[in-house]
Amino acid sequence: MDRRSFLKNSALGGTAAAAATLAAPAYAQGRRTLTLVTTWGRGLAGVHDSAQRCADQITAMTDGALTIDLKAAGELVGAFEVFDAVSSGQADMYHGADYYFVGQHPAFAYFTAVPFGMTAQELTNWYYWMGGQELHHELGEIFNIKSFLAGNTGAQAGGWFANEITGPEDFNGLKFRMPGLGGQALGRLGASVQNIPGAEVYQALASGAIDGTEWIGPWADEKAGFQEITKTYYASGFHEPGAGLSLATNLDVWNSLSAAHQAVIENVSAASHSINLAQFMAENGAALDRLQSAGVTVREFPDSVWDAFGVASQEVLEENMGDELYAKIHNSAMDSMAKSSNWIARSSGVYTAQRDRVLG
Amino acid sequence: MDRRSFLKNSALGGTAAAAATLAAPAYAQGRRTLTLVTTWGRGLAGVHDSAQRCADQITAMTDGALTIDLKAAGELVGAFEVFDAVSSGQADMYHGADYYFVGQHPAFAYFTAVPFGMTAQELTNWYYWMGGQELHHELGEIFNIKSFLAGNTGAQAGGWFANEITGPEDFNGLKFRMPGLGGQALGRLGASVQNIPGAEVYQALASGAIDGTEWIGPWADEKAGFQEITKTYYASGFHEPGAGLSLATNLDVWNSLSAAHQAVIENVSAASHSINLAQFMAENGAALDRLQSAGVTVREFPDSVWDAFGVASQEVLEENMGDELYAKIHNSAMDSMAKSSNWIARSSGVYTAQRDRVLG
Repeated sequence: MDRRSFLKNSALGGTAAAAATLAAPAYAQGRRTLTLVTTWGRGLAGVHDSAQRCADQITAMTDGALTIDLKAAGELVGAFEVFDAVSSGQADMYHGADYYFVGQHPAFAYFTAVPFGMTAQELTNWYYWMGGQELHHELGEIFNIKSFLAGNTGAQAGGWFANEITGPEDFNGLKFRMPGLGGQALGRLGASVQNIPGAEVYQALASGAIDGTEWIGPWADEKAGFQEITKTYYASGFHEPGAGLSLATNLDVWNSLSAAHQAVIENVSAASHSINLAQFMAENGAALDRLQSAGVTVREFPDSVWDAFGVASQEVLEENMGDELYAKIHNSAMDSMAKSSNWIARSSGVYTAQRDRVLG
Repeated sequence: MDRRSFLKNSALGGTAAAAATLAAPAYAQGRRTLTLVTTWGRGLAGVHDSAQRCADQITAMTDGALTIDLKAAGELVGAFEVFDAVSSGQADMYHGADYYFVGQHPAFAYFTAVPFGMTAQELTNWYYWMGGQELHHELGEIFNIKSFLAGNTGAQAGGWFANEITGPEDFNGLKFRMPGLGGQALGRLGASVQNIPGAEVYQALASGAIDGTEWIGPWADEKAGFQEITKTYYASGFHEPGAGLSLATNLDVWNSLSAAHQAVIENVSAASHSINLAQFMAENGAALDRLQSAGVTVREFPDSVWDAFGVASQEVLEENMGDELYAKIHNSAMDSMAKSSNWIARSSGVYTAQRDRVLG
């Protein structure tokens, strides 16, 4: 899996090679434009916003000494090509969801979300204080990138269904759109899992080509218009309990930056992670109200379905444990989750349940 | 309540006056040391760490063009004197909990925590996306400061008691340490509320001068050693469900900074808020396990006690509604909380309950 030596010795790295020739002191006095490619269509609610915030705030904080030029998906390279573009030096940075790159290494899933994994808060705890960020860097170094968490959608919704789900057997034969490891888990329940590009999901659901779909959460789902097709919506999902987004920099470019500019990138990432999560939470709350006002019934899966989700998720997560780095990252994440979840449940979890009960 | 005109015309503002004479372009090329005073004793777990992170990262991101000199509580001014010191220009910035300054204006409580108010996530949603930050600035402007959220302890624990609490009547006559609006609410249940300085709480509890105390959460509480005195600990509390910390800059100093340096302060604050909350969550989880291993029984208050907390908290929060700005901030915060809490409960709330049930 060590692609780094290949990349270092290849002729792919245009920008990276150029960067390496700049002496640091000269660079510190200069101005430079870095190209940021993203996995998001321009203007895509929330996720593009976080990429744009990173670009704008790096430029602002450095007074333009680092000017970030954002190229949305398709403007320079395609959404799923951003990883290889930054790894090779064709682009300087990417903003995206690292679980798109499980083909490069399956452990990238842990820096976005895995089924039955960490919430956004638990991911944050792990990332900054329980070894997550160091492991992100260890994993990224193999591919010549330096990554930081820089956005989060929060827990993604269970999704839209033609009919109510009463037990795990209802997934048997169900044509459902869900990408990634969550989709693999759903396949173990007998679902016919479809990975349909975002732009085609509405039509697929409307035509009956699929029986249901997850998307992101109430805000983005409402924009997609799924409530026009079905009124059965499941709020809580098992598949992406807190989807982190990453800002990754080509490692040669990173190493050519001054310590000050490295600190700027590190801080803009952490700030954007928190502010983006808050954006989704604020927008989702209002959108959920609107969906309910529009006649959508918001449901939760019954316990028997959660039991089946749990078994299938565990099986999927165990599949790559033969890879040493995957196992190290999996064990670190799960250990951190177990250690930090109890306090959260017993403090803010109990508090909000009591507050909402008392206030009605 | 408009102290700004007084301060502007007074002779108090040494640093502020000096800053105002610096032309912005000259300043942009220069280097400057800003003094940061805090409400924390040097090294106080978590809260001092967040102040220090702000100081270090501002210095790092600006390559020392803004060098932040942190003076802990008592090193330049006392903990509760930092607000007036920064308002008047005696110091440039403070890091602290804004509810210490309810004497200056009662609405400052909303930027730390109020009883039966917002969790850390709800505070973040309100702050960045539902008007909170703008109101923080509107409130601060009266006192010649520019503030940003820059730390969070998460939900504070219910606290330590000599005996189990079986109903609200158990608070009648109980000598309990709890500062702020939470303490006022507890007083309405008949408690004899004590506001004892941190350094004296252990001795007061050990001697029986008080029957119980809240402090912060498992990590800080364990360091304080309360588990040596009693084994009865309540995890979830009503009084500070997500205590935000602020980084405030004298407004004249703020206005003298370049846009780049203003962006640095804004981003370091948001990053530190998130990273500090994660620190408390990571440390509290591990500390809760250790406390339980040491024989502490971790309890939750019964519903009847939460009902009484709720009534008393509402009464306390209503007391200042005659002040127009207080009412505006209260209504904005409570409206935001109501709008964002439902989705959080139905997504990550349901998810974690199901996950923890299934995984055991």
